[in-house]
Amino acid sequence: MKSIHAGELRAEHIGQTVTLAGWVGRRRDHGGVAFVDLRDGSGIVQVVLNPDNEPASDDVLHGLRSEYCIQVEGEVTPRPEGTVNRDLPTGEVEVVASNLTVLSPAAALPFQLDDRSDVDESLRLKYRYLDMRRGRMAANLVARSKAIRAMRNVLDREAFLEVETPTLIASTPEGARDMLVPSRLRKGQFYALPQSPQLFKQLLMIGGVERYYQVAKCYRDEDFRADRQVEFTQLDLEGSFWGQEDVLTVLEKIAAEVVRDLRGEDIELPLPRLTWTEAMDRYGSDKPDLRFGMEIVDLSDAFADTEFKAFTGVLGDGGTVRGINAGALGLARSGLDALTTRAQELGAKGLVWMVVEEDGSLRSPVSKFLSDEERGAIVTRLDATYGDTLLIVADATKVARAVLGQLRLDLGQPTGHDELSFAFIVDFPVFDVGDDGSLSPAHHPFTAPASLEDLVNTPESAVSKAYDLVLNGSELGSGSVRIHDPAMQAKVFEVMGISDEDAESRFGWFLEALRYGTPPHAGFAFGIDRLVAILQGEPNIREIIPFPKTQTGADPLTGSPGRVDESQLEELGIEIAPAVLESWAAAEAGDTPE
Amino acid sequence: MKSIHAGELRAEHIGQTVTLAGWVGRRRDHGGVAFVDLRDGSGIVQVVLNPDNEPASDDVLHGLRSEYCIQVEGEVTPRPEGTVNRDLPTGEVEVVASNLTVLSPAAALPFQLDDRSDVDESLRLKYRYLDMRRGRMAANLVARSKAIRAMRNVLDREAFLEVETPTLIASTPEGARDMLVPSRLRKGQFYALPQSPQLFKQLLMIGGVERYYQVAKCYRDEDFRADRQVEFTQLDLEGSFWGQEDVLTVLEKIAAEVVRDLRGEDIELPLPRLTWTEAMDRYGSDKPDLRFGMEIVDLSDAFADTEFKAFTGVLGDGGTVRGINAGALGLARSGLDALTTRAQELGAKGLVWMVVEEDGSLRSPVSKFLSDEERGAIVTRLDATYGDTLLIVADATKVARAVLGQLRLDLGQPTGHDELSFAFIVDFPVFDVGDDGSLSPAHHPFTAPASLEDLVNTPESAVSKAYDLVLNGSELGSGSVRIHDPAMQAKVFEVMGISDEDAESRFGWFLEALRYGTPPHAGFAFGIDRLVAILQGEPNIREIIPFPKTQTGADPLTGSPGRVDESQLEELGIEIAPAVLESWAAAEAGDTPE
Repeated sequence: MKSIHAGELRAEHIGQTVTLAGWVGRRRDHGGVAFVDLRDGSGIVQVVLNPDNEPASDDVLHGLRSEYCIQVEGEVTPRPEGTVNRDLPTGEVEVVASNLTVLSPAAALPFQLDDRSDVDESLRLKYRYLDMRRGRMAANLVARSKAIRAMRNVLDREAFLEVETPTLIASTPEGARDMLVPSRLRKGQFYALPQSPQLFKQLLMIGGVERYYQVAKCYRDEDFRADRQVEFTQLDLEGSFWGQEDVLTVLEKIAAEVVRDLRGEDIELPLPRLTWTEAMDRYGSDKPDLRFGMEIVDLSDAFADTEFKAFTGVLGDGGTVRGINAGALGLARSGLDALTTRAQELGAKGLVWMVVEEDGSLRSPVSKFLSDEERGAIVTRLDATYGDTLLIVADATKVARAVLGQLRLDLGQPTGHDELSFAFIVDFPVFDVGDDGSLSPAHHPFTAPASLEDLVNTPESAVSKAYDLVLNGSELGSGSVRIHDPAMQAKVFEVMGISDEDAESRFGWFLEALRYGTPPHAGFAFGIDRLVAILQGEPNIREIIPFPKTQTGADPLTGSPGRVDESQLEELGIEIAPAVLESWAAAEAGDTPE
Repeated sequence: MKSIHAGELRAEHIGQTVTLAGWVGRRRDHGGVAFVDLRDGSGIVQVVLNPDNEPASDDVLHGLRSEYCIQVEGEVTPRPEGTVNRDLPTGEVEVVASNLTVLSPAAALPFQLDDRSDVDESLRLKYRYLDMRRGRMAANLVARSKAIRAMRNVLDREAFLEVETPTLIASTPEGARDMLVPSRLRKGQFYALPQSPQLFKQLLMIGGVERYYQVAKCYRDEDFRADRQVEFTQLDLEGSFWGQEDVLTVLEKIAAEVVRDLRGEDIELPLPRLTWTEAMDRYGSDKPDLRFGMEIVDLSDAFADTEFKAFTGVLGDGGTVRGINAGALGLARSGLDALTTRAQELGAKGLVWMVVEEDGSLRSPVSKFLSDEERGAIVTRLDATYGDTLLIVADATKVARAVLGQLRLDLGQPTGHDELSFAFIVDFPVFDVGDDGSLSPAHHPFTAPASLEDLVNTPESAVSKAYDLVLNGSELGSGSVRIHDPAMQAKVFEVMGISDEDAESRFGWFLEALRYGTPPHAGFAFGIDRLVAILQGEPNIREIIPFPKTQTGADPLTGSPGRVDESQLEELGIEIAPAVLESWAAAEAGDTPE
């Protein structure tokens, strides 16, 4: 239906007769002649519709509205002098139509499709198929496809096998809730949708697949959280006879190839690596944004003998005094007080601010409580010069890191993603330590500890063979070396408080599999949407997903989820709970909102 | 952990010290020395474990059992004269171990892993990870990965975009039952899992994606049917400004590339095309196996004036007389009678068999009722010679086609798939005509009819722009040109008996989308598992799927589907129906089987 794509036309085609097909973009009328932007997947070209040499009737021509799908036959001609459009790849030519066919008319649009108009997101999602015709969304679809292809290209070269794992599975132990699928043939029983292919990919390693990957759809039924989707896609990979180093090397190749294919840029390899402790100490985050400095500095020892009560109390309780040099903020007193309020909202007891005066002295409400030596140490340690604002938190280590890490982002994080800063975070702790000292596993229980002895003796500080890849302050994915020894697996369950009985009922089939010559193995899971969103400079992953859901898991386009016929449920052997039916009845009666 | 893969070792490596890792295959002991097949993903090499030059203790050596995961360091040496194994790519060399490490021991195996032992399928599925270590399954996993890569390569070259469509969707109108997923955030409401991405890929066309593909997971909740899976994978593709010819051309390229990559063979293009009517008339099937002839021949006009009552009756009722030449079957009377029984089981009122005698006469119970002319016509039309068995059915056209088509397969279909015979079947009817003359749609209602006029006036014989790809008697996939005109869509719904109200409630959102300048488009869906199964010579698709389910949708490995905690259901606002709970209670009480 077309002899060439609209966006491919150039001066070299002048004189040729071409057939184009696409959509009507902007239209301008001058002296009875219509100039129409014809747009297809490749771009835009200007079409000249002159009733004098174009056989379509005036009716057609006058009725030709935005987003009509049309076919045009015509001659490629040079644009008249002075009308060449240098911003458009096809801007040197136009197509003078000799024939126009309306393939499909378009109803009045719910919103304008040019990229400049700002449209409410719920409207964009309801008419996603129109939203996709806009340049930005169209480019994002292409970028996503290219990113996945780049990943596959690397893994193909590295002799990975693409293997599909099932999606109707038994419940997996990933922490979040499983989404369930009732079985009709076994009424009252349920499949779960996978939160990840974790155990299946480990089975593949046991099965002798030495290099596995999959672009896997995963499901997480979480409560409201910004920028998460109930269904999402990850690049899942695993290798046997492999360790952390091997995994990170492949990840570097993937990151480099995707950036090259999407941005035409080379990133410097190897990527920087930070231990979890370093990342937390220097940036207050396990997904640090390394595009800027403003590092956190531990000042505790400078205040070992301080007489400033706020610090002595904290240090006496085993706390810490840390600070950042936020640079020349130039804030008035009210701005500085707002920072204190923000620090308190973030969980700190307080915030000490100091501004370096021209004479090197420190302007600060607490300055007078500090000795010359202490003030000097602050300036030296934070590398402070005239005009810099210094922010200091004295608190428990966990709080000081978190608060300063967030203030650092508030004050220093670049907008957009013109610069890219990848890094690996390694040596994650086995456990998250709660404020009350309670331990909760930081990773799934198949993650290998660095030392089983440490895990047993000092679980609160034990390190696991787990690693993350971060980019510009976002986690792109995480992985680990897995446990391949059934005895170690049993011990880890024990330390994690998972009873033998519990382990057996939750994943006995997997523990059985571990007994048959399991090779050492390690792997990773890569969040595709997040990576592409950052590379495309998009603020959220919904811009990268062709048909995303809202944050409550609804699809405004198709109206899912929705009610279903009772007969369907009957076949499945399930019923809607009476409380839900009552709430519907009440809503219908207008008693309460649904 | 390995310096080279086991299967890569050749004479050129002799003298090198290598590190290998893999599994213990067969083991032979001679004079205190153990000869162990070390197997990894690449193949097998013989390792010589001599306690004299190998530091592992006798304990390790004696304890080394089948499927232990081991690491071996040693020197590549030529095999002693007379022990070279020409059947093995590594058969010229062996590795004399200087170091042996057991990475992971293996428990006693539930079945032997050599390919020659025939293991019950349910046991193989329960221990799929061990089954995968066998050569046949390992090769199938590789073949599946290669096939999908070949498909992607073609589509990448043809500038297709890979786009992911959602899997938690609204109910789709595909005919089979939807699998449902209860929503927790909107209690009492459900998502459906997609039976295909049909409507979403059409939305992509409306959205301006001109070439789309996806390797898509689909779900069908069907009753027991051999060789079907509740979840399955299809290569889904669609293009706009495209017609049937464009689709078939791309499919030919895909078929050729997959066959080349998996078999190293070239198939002849273009592929043969038969209309549905031709296929039914000549082979009695819409998925004919074209590897052999034995075509069905219409003999009706030869019996226009027959006096044979069985034929006159059928022809008088608008029926047909058709036959096949089954060749030299050499069957005794009992064998011929068995064919008659088979024909009756298949739905025919009876079967006429005839055997061509040496003198050209026809031996048959009905021969005497036929005229010389009629007997002569049979021999001529069926191209019969001495020894041939001719089978004739006189019945309604539909029955005669189906019965002879199945007898043709029973008697002529080759075993295995050494030869490949692809074909397109085109011009499918819009409706399947029931025995009672009732019409039921043969395709989803978005399929374009060849002529709207025919559809309205003579629906029973109307043809649609639908096509299938078949291989060796199996359907690999189907596709069609879609309706892009909302008015035609409304008319088709009307003819199919779908009321406006029904259409609006089932896919109103899609009908809305059609109104915004929908381009003409067409597409296809390719059953990946079936294609790979045939190319691998496997009798069923479960051999191609890494973790398949049984025919009742169960997974013997993980035990899914299974019962879940009441608290999980409560969160979802659903309950198990009382009848199901009662049946469980009864089963537990031993009253009835569960």
